[in-house]
Amino acid sequence: MYVVFEGIDTTGKSTQIELFKKNEQDIVALKEPGGTKLGEKLREIILQSNFNLSFNAELFLFLADRAQNFEENIEKFKDKIIISDRGLISGIAYALANHPTLDIDFLININRFALNGNLPDKVVLFKTNAKLIEQRLSEKNHDNIELRGTEYLLKVQDLMVDVLNKLPIKVLVIDASKSIDEIYKEIRKDIYDSVA
Amino acid sequence: MYVVFEGIDTTGKSTQIELFKKNEQDIVALKEPGGTKLGEKLREIILQSNFNLSFNAELFLFLADRAQNFEENIEKFKDKIIISDRGLISGIAYALANHPTLDIDFLININRFALNGNLPDKVVLFKTNAKLIEQRLSEKNHDNIELRGTEYLLKVQDLMVDVLNKLPIKVLVIDASKSIDEIYKEIRKDIYDSVA
Repeated sequence: MYVVFEGIDTTGKSTQIELFKKNEQDIVALKEPGGTKLGEKLREIILQSNFNLSFNAELFLFLADRAQNFEENIEKFKDKIIISDRGLISGIAYALANHPTLDIDFLININRFALNGNLPDKVVLFKTNAKLIEQRLSEKNHDNIELRGTEYLLKVQDLMVDVLNKLPIKVLVIDASKSIDEIYKEIRKDIYDSVA
Repeated sequence: MYVVFEGIDTTGKSTQIELFKKNEQDIVALKEPGGTKLGEKLREIILQSNFNLSFNAELFLFLADRAQNFEENIEKFKDKIIISDRGLISGIAYALANHPTLDIDFLININRFALNGNLPDKVVLFKTNAKLIEQRLSEKNHDNIELRGTEYLLKVQDLMVDVLNKLPIKVLVIDASKSIDEIYKEIRKDIYDSVA
């Protein structure tokens, strides 16, 4: 089962993935971008400023990473429970947030192509709100994406919902304001009920 | 003006490009893949076997190269005569030859996206036949693509024609059996008549 945890920064997604990695023996934890030798190399290229990447080139590099990750990891572990930190939903939502003239259906098509026509079996969507974002942003250091502000993050969150509404994927919506323990139990129950 | 020289190996495409580079001061010679810092890096990745590239990942790397090349070179030199050794026509034809289940329209769409919706102003298509291919293959050393044989090369050539038939691009068809000098004059006249 291929489960993708999606949500903007500050929603506690990574905290939950760490908990699953620590507590459950039978899961395979993956992340995007990365997770393959190609992915690590492409991550380096994307982060290095000296390539002056055009927007389209960067988009294709993310898709190459996604395609390689699908064939090298997701196909291989499909009989286990795969939990991935991000996937195509984030990919499409951030692309749309940064370039609103892109066509959402086109982006969905090329992402499905990267997954050989497949989709995740489930998306766990961590949802937040302006007050909670600001509270959490004030608590810790944040990378460039987070520094673009609350309004940007909420726009990305709305776009994730738009993308999910267009895809036949089961979604578990998580209220990010709940406690770490509550959220963990809720996701765990949902996933293990699905495979039971 | 963005002119792309297309044709399978052994058709004399590269010989003509060398002649244009040597004889004409006002042209900009480009090639695919390559031509940008990103392109050189991606070429390295594609040629190194240790990444075990999936087909889809490789396709996206070629598209990233094409997109970067468009933004960094073709956009910049669009007021000059750009002559490119290969471009989207080859890209799509080789993808289809190797993976016949791919959808030609989908491939055209993602390639046009890589070019920000643009297309070459002209394609010079070098056409050959079985007898000429075999004669030329016997004359020199050949790389892996060429070693796949005459039938494969002719299939790629047919696919190039199929792709061109779907696109609103002016095509100059060159009979590859003509002499180097005849071909050079024919292309030169066509290009300079177009910009006159």
